[in-house]
Amino acid sequence: MSLAGTIEEMAEEAKKASRELRILGSAQKDAALELMATKIIEKQADIIKENEKDLNNAKEQGLPSAMIDRLTLNEKVIGEMAAGLREVAVLPDPVGEIPGMWKRPNGLLVGKVRIPIGVIGFIYESRPNVTVDAAALCLKSGNSVILKGGSEAIYSNLVLAEILARALNEASLPQKAIQLIPTTDRESVNILIGLDNYIDMIIPRGGEGLIRFVSEHSRIPVLKHYKGVCHVYVDEFADLNVAGDICFNSKVQRPGVCNAMETMLVHEAVADSFLPAMAERFHEAGVEIRGCPRTVELIPGSKPAGEADWPAEFLDLILAVKVVSNMEEALDHIERYSSSHTEAIITNDYNRSQRFLAEVDSSAVLINASTRFNDGNQLGLGAEIGINTSKLHAFGPMGLVELTSSKFIVYGNGQTRN
Amino acid sequence: MSLAGTIEEMAEEAKKASRELRILGSAQKDAALELMATKIIEKQADIIKENEKDLNNAKEQGLPSAMIDRLTLNEKVIGEMAAGLREVAVLPDPVGEIPGMWKRPNGLLVGKVRIPIGVIGFIYESRPNVTVDAAALCLKSGNSVILKGGSEAIYSNLVLAEILARALNEASLPQKAIQLIPTTDRESVNILIGLDNYIDMIIPRGGEGLIRFVSEHSRIPVLKHYKGVCHVYVDEFADLNVAGDICFNSKVQRPGVCNAMETMLVHEAVADSFLPAMAERFHEAGVEIRGCPRTVELIPGSKPAGEADWPAEFLDLILAVKVVSNMEEALDHIERYSSSHTEAIITNDYNRSQRFLAEVDSSAVLINASTRFNDGNQLGLGAEIGINTSKLHAFGPMGLVELTSSKFIVYGNGQTRN
Repeated sequence: MSLAGTIEEMAEEAKKASRELRILGSAQKDAALELMATKIIEKQADIIKENEKDLNNAKEQGLPSAMIDRLTLNEKVIGEMAAGLREVAVLPDPVGEIPGMWKRPNGLLVGKVRIPIGVIGFIYESRPNVTVDAAALCLKSGNSVILKGGSEAIYSNLVLAEILARALNEASLPQKAIQLIPTTDRESVNILIGLDNYIDMIIPRGGEGLIRFVSEHSRIPVLKHYKGVCHVYVDEFADLNVAGDICFNSKVQRPGVCNAMETMLVHEAVADSFLPAMAERFHEAGVEIRGCPRTVELIPGSKPAGEADWPAEFLDLILAVKVVSNMEEALDHIERYSSSHTEAIITNDYNRSQRFLAEVDSSAVLINASTRFNDGNQLGLGAEIGINTSKLHAFGPMGLVELTSSKFIVYGNGQTRN
Repeated sequence: MSLAGTIEEMAEEAKKASRELRILGSAQKDAALELMATKIIEKQADIIKENEKDLNNAKEQGLPSAMIDRLTLNEKVIGEMAAGLREVAVLPDPVGEIPGMWKRPNGLLVGKVRIPIGVIGFIYESRPNVTVDAAALCLKSGNSVILKGGSEAIYSNLVLAEILARALNEASLPQKAIQLIPTTDRESVNILIGLDNYIDMIIPRGGEGLIRFVSEHSRIPVLKHYKGVCHVYVDEFADLNVAGDICFNSKVQRPGVCNAMETMLVHEAVADSFLPAMAERFHEAGVEIRGCPRTVELIPGSKPAGEADWPAEFLDLILAVKVVSNMEEALDHIERYSSSHTEAIITNDYNRSQRFLAEVDSSAVLINASTRFNDGNQLGLGAEIGINTSKLHAFGPMGLVELTSSKFIVYGNGQTRN
């Protein structure tokens, strides 16, 4: 069969499976997730063996050691995958929730009930544990999933998806609820995003190029996870110790992720007292500073920032720094350059904190806390499948609830419309 | 300036205006809506004069009289537009609502607050009052809107949009929050749906061709309002008087709309007692019946249904009828042919009513009530801007709440991540 035929058949089977999934009770889904955790541990020798094929290919291709680390599955990582499955099993099931019902003047009783979305196409370029995480979240929220992982992890992903699908079968759930596209052919992405008769939502996770390609070509709605150009604004009324710790954490704790700070904005009234000491701390951590003219004056040895630095997602130990003469300038800068991901203010002034919360149009806006908290787990949603940077459906981290939709249910007793 | 340049400039201005809109209080928005209502009445002579240009063009082009009726603006219709504006003014403002907040173990206080989406592109082919309704709903929900109406209503739409924008200005709100594309050139649709730097959501409302074109070509997320192939299933335990009234209402009360019944499914146990009398009633109302073989036996003179009749949205006094041997057959038929819009069951059996609610995957599922109730006003959402038949963002009727998104707000006191 052609690749297009194979993928279309997978999508058709996924849709059939979703009809069974949407009426499953939580107990059945949770039991399947527990069984998956058990099977992942039982089969860890097989997993490690398949993973070695990916690792050998990676070494042959000369991939950097950091990438090889991310690709490696050992007993510890496999144990974490199993633990992740069990964590999803104990999260509350969003499906079936009816937050409230109301009575219409004609006696109709109307409510909205949470339902699964249906079939999700998940396209990713990350480490193989994402295969397991994404499958778990989709199953728990009652959705079928078609996974398209990165070519560098194909053997690992295949063995993991097979273990998960067999566990579904053993738990008497539809095996086709979790399927992985068994090829590294990039054309499969093109095929997948055209199957709008079967697939309800596409989630791409990976580099900006992948996400842009999928968004521009998909006939299915896409929830995108674009870049994070996150700002921290150190206000003139900030506690400078708090500001120092938060800015340091936001930049340095894990610089390669989307919720790391990329630009620091400092009110001019505190620039003298804050910047030189902060620069010292950043310098010791290996952070390169690219500053506005005032910053360069205050931090000897810092580089001047170019126009390209303000909208940049460095994902590295590089920080753009700008001194602003007032809060408006900070807000204007954020409005212009932010990617609507995460912004924080450091201040002890009540009115400024409230104004920042109200005016900044990003998926998470924080007062006196690190940007690194914009994450499904950290905000209390449980595990997340991605961070949506468009405002449709769910803005920000997407957990189980965000993988559902809702329908209206209406209890009548013969009502007709005039 | 080129058309592309003009529309891009409009989109840029709309985005600027949205920054002001998102922090406006309800009182200011409501005052502007009231002022719009006053101005619409004050300027009714101008409106009628411009509308006459459209009507003359329509007559010259030989448009059918039903279309000319829909296009006509007279004192009564203008009064209804003003009343519609006042109705939106008194609806609750969804923006700023925080349904709840929660404390994280590290002391962070986290909540989600409703925010406007930003800039909405609204493409429609309907009567000119939609210009006013859509503008009102977008303003109240804090969104800028760029309107692209049908060419047959261009003069009417232009004068209405101008009155609304002037009222915004007089109310000290950003005038560019409501803009209408001042051309009948269809290329403007293409331009509009490519401006993903400025526009957050596209809502197309009109024929299936328009919606399909927009969905396939837009670089901006689209909330589509596809067809409604709505079913009523008359169960063996239905009260047949109730079934008769509901089926009649669902088909005949307004056959040209998306929530009218297109297929009636009848359990074979009641087919003999229900169908002949029902067919008589439909016959008197001018409804043509296209039936399965058993239906044709029971209703002398009815036509046999072809395969194309089951997925058809007739939008007319035509009804497909099928006798089913059990509830599973009804559910399978709905699963196969429904457009996920609206389905109803008529039954007095508790378990069947619950099963239908649970298993049918449509935006509204009703027990013992007419399909015609799937409408924002009828379900209690207030006015609606459309009915979304994809499961993303908001499934079903979209009122003010569905024109918003939400962001996370986080109150910290120095938290950093480990």
